[in-house]
Amino acid sequence: MREVAVIGAGMTKFGELWNMSLRDLFVESALGAMESAGVDTLDSIYIGNMSAGQFVGQEHLGPLMADSLGMAGVPATRVESACASGGMAIRSAFLEVASGASDFVLAAGVEKMNDGADVTGVLATASDQEEEVYYGVTFPGLYAMIARAHMEKYGTTEEDLSWVSVKAHKNGAKNPHAQFRRVMSLEDVMTSSMVAEPLRLLHCSPVTDGGAAVLLCPLDRAKEFTDKPVKILGSGAATSTLALADRADPSHLDAVELSGQRAYEMAGLKPEDIDVAEVHDCFSIAEICCYEALGFVEQGKGKDAAREGITDLGGAIPVNISGGLKSKGHPVGATGVAQAVTIVEQLRGEAGELQVEGARIGLAQNMGGSGASSTVHIFQGV
Amino acid sequence: MREVAVIGAGMTKFGELWNMSLRDLFVESALGAMESAGVDTLDSIYIGNMSAGQFVGQEHLGPLMADSLGMAGVPATRVESACASGGMAIRSAFLEVASGASDFVLAAGVEKMNDGADVTGVLATASDQEEEVYYGVTFPGLYAMIARAHMEKYGTTEEDLSWVSVKAHKNGAKNPHAQFRRVMSLEDVMTSSMVAEPLRLLHCSPVTDGGAAVLLCPLDRAKEFTDKPVKILGSGAATSTLALADRADPSHLDAVELSGQRAYEMAGLKPEDIDVAEVHDCFSIAEICCYEALGFVEQGKGKDAAREGITDLGGAIPVNISGGLKSKGHPVGATGVAQAVTIVEQLRGEAGELQVEGARIGLAQNMGGSGASSTVHIFQGV
Repeated sequence: MREVAVIGAGMTKFGELWNMSLRDLFVESALGAMESAGVDTLDSIYIGNMSAGQFVGQEHLGPLMADSLGMAGVPATRVESACASGGMAIRSAFLEVASGASDFVLAAGVEKMNDGADVTGVLATASDQEEEVYYGVTFPGLYAMIARAHMEKYGTTEEDLSWVSVKAHKNGAKNPHAQFRRVMSLEDVMTSSMVAEPLRLLHCSPVTDGGAAVLLCPLDRAKEFTDKPVKILGSGAATSTLALADRADPSHLDAVELSGQRAYEMAGLKPEDIDVAEVHDCFSIAEICCYEALGFVEQGKGKDAAREGITDLGGAIPVNISGGLKSKGHPVGATGVAQAVTIVEQLRGEAGELQVEGARIGLAQNMGGSGASSTVHIFQGV
Repeated sequence: MREVAVIGAGMTKFGELWNMSLRDLFVESALGAMESAGVDTLDSIYIGNMSAGQFVGQEHLGPLMADSLGMAGVPATRVESACASGGMAIRSAFLEVASGASDFVLAAGVEKMNDGADVTGVLATASDQEEEVYYGVTFPGLYAMIARAHMEKYGTTEEDLSWVSVKAHKNGAKNPHAQFRRVMSLEDVMTSSMVAEPLRLLHCSPVTDGGAAVLLCPLDRAKEFTDKPVKILGSGAATSTLALADRADPSHLDAVELSGQRAYEMAGLKPEDIDVAEVHDCFSIAEICCYEALGFVEQGKGKDAAREGITDLGGAIPVNISGGLKSKGHPVGATGVAQAVTIVEQLRGEAGELQVEGARIGLAQNMGGSGASSTVHIFQGV
């Protein structure tokens, strides 16, 4: 396999972007990635997107996006793994460059969620239609069950969940791309509306429009296009059962653990080698479970990490310093690529107020459904 | 790049399969492919599917299918390029094996179209929502416009279109997997109901449930699993504008031509080297355009090929001997993989009554929308 690097990155602001269509979101982020590398040709495009068919009546994003970018002709396809679609798009682009088939491959993610669709109903189609949706379950309910299981097993409290949200908003307030740039106190979080007990409104990521893109090329050509290439050291992907009830331990995200192990193995690294990470905090409990599944803390100790500052800026392993899905926003198909954009900025030392000092190795973890699919990518500034 | 071979193939019967769910269609075809190679382990799974979210309320097919196959944990993702989703799944699997990242990769395609959804409306989301669907266009109308343009430019007649359907049904009647195993006369076709002038009912492919799968591994290991491996000589993909009206010549499928050129170049072959082909005849006019775009006949001569027997069994270049999408059926996300299954059977000499004598090199061409995306794969029996 050829070694692969990220040479460009771009993303839109995240939020309720009523004046931008699906194609606008893609084009702005794609041009951002290409212009930052000074590249105006592509060999292939992957677009992570969960549900444009249901959200805005548009499948077949490959040719739509290639053409909107002025590049009709270039091979382009959509990759879907629910909220892990962005991570899967990066993995597909990585494999295509690694194979030697292509040199310049764009991995983008895009989602237009604010356009009138029944968002909760659409998102529910990432869970098992026949075993879960049919009985009325939606995602706040599924993650509430994960939280309940974690509370039962490890003594996790509602306050533990809340500290994750407080950290997210404290950092996200400084991120110009973030949807909700507002500091939230522990009291704000713990008195917000109950959504699905024990998850309150401020334990849940919002409904967001957005796009993000990274441009990949062979590592040995990367310096032609940027002084600060970022090497992809490892790529791991895994699945678990789609239905939460089919898992032996619903408090443990086994696909996250497995995808992490695969990425660590490819990179020849361990959790303690990671300087900065973005993980998939679609709900605050998910971030706690990801700490554990990725080996940042011991199983059962995830509940303490945000409160004790372990995962905050300046802590042992800063996580979701972008504000995470909670504050930055969660355009589902774009999230996994936006995480990579954040890590690339960190490893290039371009994260401004949110910079993790001396960050050399970063990790991005993206998951779909109630943790049924997960990707982990490990990056190194070179 | 490593050389890649198909070592197993499987598919369901195509038709209105009211007693089979989406997961059933996948599992039957996946097990068919794995059992035919005696392989019970997979490194990765790609699932071509256009619109399960809209057809049956189910996105996130990766983990659903891996788990349904008893293989939760294995990386699995959906690839979508409308009706070219299956071809794109094969291309993704090909690149993953070629890269060296994985040895055993399953490329499957599945679609459950008969489950109560508004099929014509769902399919229309493969065209441009903002430039086409909004104004009321659906696919029979788009291909009718392609037919009208071809008639205007080359003098193609309704009878020329009809001979393509006659050939499809004559051969499909002998294919045990086909949905409509019925011989149709020229009169049957030319007196069938008008759908979108000049396209009649028997110029249109039907609404179909079905699944198909091929199992890929490195060529140098293929003989461990089968006496008759089939090497993938070339893989080409391309896009065009999503909206038909944006193309310079609507009678010419430029993405098909470009994807074909890329596949021929990778294979080091020319159109005249192809012994048997499956092309994307979602409407009869599409098959005529594909003859031309793939170089099987000169531009403008496609109209004569079926009538003159050039593309029939025993002709210079037998095309859609399976019955094609017209008679075999068109479960949109599965079609591209089913085409590959047919070509593999031909190159192994296992096509029974439909065998093309001495077939050594075969081509499968799969497209999405009104030809906005296309994949071409070239295979060789080894």
